[in-house]
Amino acid sequence: MKKLINDPDQVVAEALEGFEMAYGGRVHVNHDPAFVARKDAPVQGKVAIVSGGGSGHEPMHPGYVGPGMLDAAVPGQMFTSPTPDQVEAATKAGAADKGVLHLVKNYTGDVANFEMAAELAEAEGIEVRSVVIDDDVAVKDSLFTAGRRGVGGTVLIEKIVGACADRGDDLEAVTNLAATLNGRVRSMGMALTPCTVPSAGEPTFELADNEMEIGIGIHGEPGRERLPLESADQIAERLLNPILEDLPFRSGDEVLLFVNGMGGTPMIELLVVYRAACRLLSEHGITVQRDLVGNYITALEMAGCSITLLKLDEDTKWLWDAPVDTPGLSWGAWEPPNLPWTPQWQVNTSRRTLPWTAT
Amino acid sequence: MKKLINDPDQVVAEALEGFEMAYGGRVHVNHDPAFVARKDAPVQGKVAIVSGGGSGHEPMHPGYVGPGMLDAAVPGQMFTSPTPDQVEAATKAGAADKGVLHLVKNYTGDVANFEMAAELAEAEGIEVRSVVIDDDVAVKDSLFTAGRRGVGGTVLIEKIVGACADRGDDLEAVTNLAATLNGRVRSMGMALTPCTVPSAGEPTFELADNEMEIGIGIHGEPGRERLPLESADQIAERLLNPILEDLPFRSGDEVLLFVNGMGGTPMIELLVVYRAACRLLSEHGITVQRDLVGNYITALEMAGCSITLLKLDEDTKWLWDAPVDTPGLSWGAWEPPNLPWTPQWQVNTSRRTLPWTAT
Repeated sequence: MKKLINDPDQVVAEALEGFEMAYGGRVHVNHDPAFVARKDAPVQGKVAIVSGGGSGHEPMHPGYVGPGMLDAAVPGQMFTSPTPDQVEAATKAGAADKGVLHLVKNYTGDVANFEMAAELAEAEGIEVRSVVIDDDVAVKDSLFTAGRRGVGGTVLIEKIVGACADRGDDLEAVTNLAATLNGRVRSMGMALTPCTVPSAGEPTFELADNEMEIGIGIHGEPGRERLPLESADQIAERLLNPILEDLPFRSGDEVLLFVNGMGGTPMIELLVVYRAACRLLSEHGITVQRDLVGNYITALEMAGCSITLLKLDEDTKWLWDAPVDTPGLSWGAWEPPNLPWTPQWQVNTSRRTLPWTAT
Repeated sequence: MKKLINDPDQVVAEALEGFEMAYGGRVHVNHDPAFVARKDAPVQGKVAIVSGGGSGHEPMHPGYVGPGMLDAAVPGQMFTSPTPDQVEAATKAGAADKGVLHLVKNYTGDVANFEMAAELAEAEGIEVRSVVIDDDVAVKDSLFTAGRRGVGGTVLIEKIVGACADRGDDLEAVTNLAATLNGRVRSMGMALTPCTVPSAGEPTFELADNEMEIGIGIHGEPGRERLPLESADQIAERLLNPILEDLPFRSGDEVLLFVNGMGGTPMIELLVVYRAACRLLSEHGITVQRDLVGNYITALEMAGCSITLLKLDEDTKWLWDAPVDTPGLSWGAWEPPNLPWTPQWQVNTSRRTLPWTAT
């Protein structure tokens, strides 16, 4: 096991200390129980958005705390659900006067522990709603999961729902948007290499030199099939086709295309996959109106990628374009606003339109 | 060789197409000769900042084109200097009415080809200055290099000099700032694993399962020594001590600490290294006032990291905090300005101050 760590059992705690040293000017870090909250939490006049899950997927979730995205996030131990008391503490830290929405990836432990935390918080008078994210089309059930897994769609939903909360929508509206988005987003991933949980010291699975795993989970859970390595174009097709069929996505749809790296894949390869995915979508008459390319929901040092597709409408595009200021996702404001509400910030929606697919 | 690619010889060209599909709404991509320029280039009233180098270090350099950073960037073939005609074309695309500054990493091919391009552009009436960046303290000479190599400091210099050009400083001032910054920045890197250039198909070097290379270059060039794997704390010390001794950095200094991933190292490990570096600097009485943690100058899928330290003054801090809007580095504007000039954007300098090291 070759890793830049000290004690394998202290990686999560030490990384959280490093996170505080790097971003402590922008977020509040609590160590016992471990959670991260907006520096200015609780923020009155807005629904608080709280998420979390096992560590090893950085920048998700602590990296998405800040204006325009999460109010608080809970890092569990490596690939392990956070405990109910962690989630309860984060919920209380985030909660202001408009209630709390939990965004929960669909893994058995996460769902149970967020549910318990919600009950504890409600007993103290905090109104909590919950939306479970299950966007992975690869497998029906899996290790740690009844039903589909929550993967790349989580990043997009956290960004868009975060902006919705920031503009002042109430708890019902924010919850409904999260549920609607979950219905409109689909993902699938693949791996070239496994990853190693430090405390285990051994790879989560084995792949031969010429093999890849299609439909992999973000903890190295088994996917659909193990195949000989193929070209980036072929791999993009293997990931995209099941996504397109599942919703289904149709000609004329406008989408956000998210090509995510699993942690060990360089940006130049993700761009080759992005190109392939764009071309395939173009052949299907689907317009890529927004995009995200990079390492946003990872599986430690796993080499591989996932593709996520989200069906867009006008409101969703505006909320995506809205400024966000978190350690893991950040963009700002350059031109006067043209928005249906009065924002505290300025945004240029045209800046992120993609002319290549629009022409 | 396990990579998400199609033809090994087409990776750079296809990635540039992917880059255009993803970011074409924000930057102009030229394919023959290959360069990337600001969408609104040439921008009158400012010095144009142009950089470039071999591909495989993404997001550097094409990912740093945009308001607040580079006007144009030139991607060479993989780990290969861009050609003079590429650099000349990028220079002409960027040049407006205040001249052009070339920021060149110190590799023999880069220096020669940028020099030739500068001569060609000057023959056409464009005023060009050049600053060569050589911040790597690991070795005196190396493969491809007479003198020290240009590495992580390049990212910081491009950001800060880009902001200086954006505020309207003239060519002499911008050039002097780049040279001054190069004198104040030092870096050193290490590798846990090698990387493979696609067209070569074999790793650039071999490392045993328990070995690491200290002082590695961003093309896998040999470093100072090959040692048994150590803890993150020990590795941070091996990288930081030569940096501190070289300038030298002293107690009371304010610095920007940049912990960079080589491409295959997950964020959680970089945070463990960042923590170690922060603690060591604190022991030396050095204050980390600004920071950057992530994959910003990579060596394909190499696992490893580099540490870069830049001595700060007030103007440098302001320029670092100024908004930047590029595919690879982006932050915005949230609060009213408190700056010694009149910006077109707003910036909150306090947002990036780090209370952990300041208290």
